[in-house]
Amino acid sequence: MSTNQTMKVGILGFGGLGQAATKVLAPKQEMDWVAAADLKGYAYCETGLEPQKAIATYHQQGSIGYLEPHGTLSNHSIKNLLETAQVDGYFLALPNLPNTFMADVARQFIASGWKGVLVDALKRTSAVEQLLQIRRELETAGITYMTGCGATPGLLTAAAAVAAQSYHEIHQVKITFGVGIANWEAYRATIREDIAHLPGFNVDKAKAMSDAEVEAFLDQTNGILTLENMEHADDIMLELAGICSRDQVTVGGVVDTRNPKKPLSTNVQITGRTFEGKISTHTFTLGDETSMAANVCGPAFGYLKAGFSLHRRGIHGLFTAAEIMPHFVR
Amino acid sequence: MSTNQTMKVGILGFGGLGQAATKVLAPKQEMDWVAAADLKGYAYCETGLEPQKAIATYHQQGSIGYLEPHGTLSNHSIKNLLETAQVDGYFLALPNLPNTFMADVARQFIASGWKGVLVDALKRTSAVEQLLQIRRELETAGITYMTGCGATPGLLTAAAAVAAQSYHEIHQVKITFGVGIANWEAYRATIREDIAHLPGFNVDKAKAMSDAEVEAFLDQTNGILTLENMEHADDIMLELAGICSRDQVTVGGVVDTRNPKKPLSTNVQITGRTFEGKISTHTFTLGDETSMAANVCGPAFGYLKAGFSLHRRGIHGLFTAAEIMPHFVR
Repeated sequence: MSTNQTMKVGILGFGGLGQAATKVLAPKQEMDWVAAADLKGYAYCETGLEPQKAIATYHQQGSIGYLEPHGTLSNHSIKNLLETAQVDGYFLALPNLPNTFMADVARQFIASGWKGVLVDALKRTSAVEQLLQIRRELETAGITYMTGCGATPGLLTAAAAVAAQSYHEIHQVKITFGVGIANWEAYRATIREDIAHLPGFNVDKAKAMSDAEVEAFLDQTNGILTLENMEHADDIMLELAGICSRDQVTVGGVVDTRNPKKPLSTNVQITGRTFEGKISTHTFTLGDETSMAANVCGPAFGYLKAGFSLHRRGIHGLFTAAEIMPHFVR
Repeated sequence: MSTNQTMKVGILGFGGLGQAATKVLAPKQEMDWVAAADLKGYAYCETGLEPQKAIATYHQQGSIGYLEPHGTLSNHSIKNLLETAQVDGYFLALPNLPNTFMADVARQFIASGWKGVLVDALKRTSAVEQLLQIRRELETAGITYMTGCGATPGLLTAAAAVAAQSYHEIHQVKITFGVGIANWEAYRATIREDIAHLPGFNVDKAKAMSDAEVEAFLDQTNGILTLENMEHADDIMLELAGICSRDQVTVGGVVDTRNPKKPLSTNVQITGRTFEGKISTHTFTLGDETSMAANVCGPAFGYLKAGFSLHRRGIHGLFTAAEIMPHFVR
């Protein structure tokens, strides 16, 4: 880990989320984006990579490994990057599917002997359960792993954890999100993950859909996906934080895949009973003008910075967005 | 510090806030209320004190020092309590005036050689500035001091710190509170502190007011206090957390001293610019049914628990509600 103020940051996965993350990092003085990897290659420059050039290369040639002069094509891109790069922390902007993906990547970090901070913006409860199985290995390896640190879980889970403080007991945490994206093709993996939550679909079935099949499916719903009782890791994170049991947490929302305007304002409602016996509800509502990218990548880097602070103090292991206050990245 | 799960908690100050705190603690399994001190005495019982009996004694005789059989009258109640009691952490439910009060009490803890966790629910920026002057001494003494951990600053500051994560830069944090209390005489010190914020008043003038003068003043306003641009420590806490400069934070509100119903819903609005250049506002709104006592004491104990976690890891010094995630107390 660098001892100076600027943290060297890598991004694993270079889809819509990974690309947005490079733009979020670009104006930050405290973090330099120096590395990225996708399925087919990686790029590394210790003095920093350029988002525009990297994104253009990915769109034109299909991998950041083609980036001149810093890219390398590889079928073992993460492994090779870890062998090559000096990076303090990585944002795992990887697809959520399969559910074992994050934990498998974390195992690669452990196996490599790398020490530092990892942050993910994963979605599913089962993915956190996979990570819980290796929490001791992460700690022993000297890795501080921050999980569930996007928007939901992440920003909204943290707001719920703060809001819970007014209550003696929590009755319900209800997360309702609205997402509007101009063009679903920029978020191919994310949209398939959303479809997997719908009745009649599952992870394998959604993942196997071709772009044309996704397009045809979205034509039937005018591009709208309405999601209820989703498997979202907010539930296990609030349970691990001792706030409520996971069955008291519900996540649902509406995704408009053809309109950047949000179909509803994303919010979390926290209902509980105070020490005086009153039932009440706190509400945290996101401004509609904040994009999914802003609400995911901003918190992810805020938790990455908080993770650096823990790591410097020798605190390693697995932490969630409900336990640690994110730090603001300048 | 006890190594078992139950934390032994003391309360300094036994006005409205200190008394409410005992009721908040009563059903908690993780914390035992074992000690309290007011100006004229203290009470200590290692197996736990009874809120109802203690509150009745204070109301009838004017000090918890009269509590039988655990009370002791003393003109040096804090000093004597520290010499006597085995306590893991204290909630400083003390008046905010004078602004040096919390720091002076903290110096008493340092001087006594006591090690543990302190939490306050102070209000004023200048009181935090006083504490900043002794942050090194707190750290050296082995004290983990959590400041600004009530409702505002505290709960709302933490919500603002979480909300800030969506933005590249913060433009404004606007806190607007509504407080309704059935009877101002239960919160004599708090109401004088509020009056001190009004035009034409200051801390000394408000403190010097007799109960009859406060009553007469409230008669002129139908019991309503409208407060603007208050000196509240939310500003310095968000500045210390690197989120924005203190002049971007405003705190105001309406206090109805004759009606438990809130005159407006307490909320914090966080306005900023995203990495994409969009200006937006997140809003966190408290449910009206949550009382000031619930919104102050709940977070205070949540931060006390978080402080225990830091203290166990050997992390001492001064921390604010904007830096640390409160832990839920069961």
